[in-house]
Amino acid sequence: MSDPSGPPIHEAVEPFRFLLGSWRGTGQGSYPTIESFGYHEEVTFGHVGKPFLSYTQKTRHIDTGLPLHAETGYWRPVGGGRFEVVLSHPTGILESLGGRFKTEPGGGQFQLRSDAVTLTATAVEVTETERRFVIDGDSLTYEFAMAAVGLELQHHLAATLTRV
Amino acid sequence: MSDPSGPPIHEAVEPFRFLLGSWRGTGQGSYPTIESFGYHEEVTFGHVGKPFLSYTQKTRHIDTGLPLHAETGYWRPVGGGRFEVVLSHPTGILESLGGRFKTEPGGGQFQLRSDAVTLTATAVEVTETERRFVIDGDSLTYEFAMAAVGLELQHHLAATLTRV
Repeated sequence: MSDPSGPPIHEAVEPFRFLLGSWRGTGQGSYPTIESFGYHEEVTFGHVGKPFLSYTQKTRHIDTGLPLHAETGYWRPVGGGRFEVVLSHPTGILESLGGRFKTEPGGGQFQLRSDAVTLTATAVEVTETERRFVIDGDSLTYEFAMAAVGLELQHHLAATLTRV
Repeated sequence: MSDPSGPPIHEAVEPFRFLLGSWRGTGQGSYPTIESFGYHEEVTFGHVGKPFLSYTQKTRHIDTGLPLHAETGYWRPVGGGRFEVVLSHPTGILESLGGRFKTEPGGGQFQLRSDAVTLTATAVEVTETERRFVIDGDSLTYEFAMAAVGLELQHHLAATLTRV
């Protein structure tokens, strides 16, 4: 939840107040080049009274609890239900995404697609990503597709999280 | 400090253990297009047992305490004292930086320069950045230069932080 002692929420963020706080659950990953795997996940959205949401995501191995992936960045509502999202990954990947929010009963759906993927010299090649988040009350589900290591854009991750 | 109950530190991160934890202090900003300003800052480096450091930075107005800037991302030691750094900013800016660490008495110096700056559609134009961090015991000082809004690479920020 947002800090009640913090600054008031910005009017650009207010319609997306339902995102604020932490979400936890489990997901499944697959890709032609790897073995399928399960994971625990926590996603946190925050605000500081400015026109953006902070976003952090962390996953852990379903059996060992050891850290797997992480990503961090910001979601920027830019008017008319449109969003810009900037994310960095510890694997040396930077994503600039654009997309839209569509209101639905219980929350809504965010569809985000990469405008640019930037890689450091040692990063694995990812060229395109697509993310769909559906919020329905206290449930957040997402699907993540990527084009990586020369393969076409295709399914990689799906998870179902619950508001903490 | 790192969480003593967390995974052991990765050997790639071990030489940079001195970064871990939070640093607080004040800084000064200037640029030809804006009024000079002072700020409070907190920088936090973390690790999860993998070969990277997490990095978050937040600044607040020196008088009002209201949030100013923030950035978040990861520092990746890639061998031979070389680093890759990926950062995202809530203003819609993504930086991929490369550079080196040089050992010095009391710690050392990181010199990082942007390899790529990626902007969302609505972001202010930044084309190049340069960062120098000097750690000497419990003191962290940095200087930040940028080329923005058509101007050449030049000084923008300087701050002195102390280990919390």
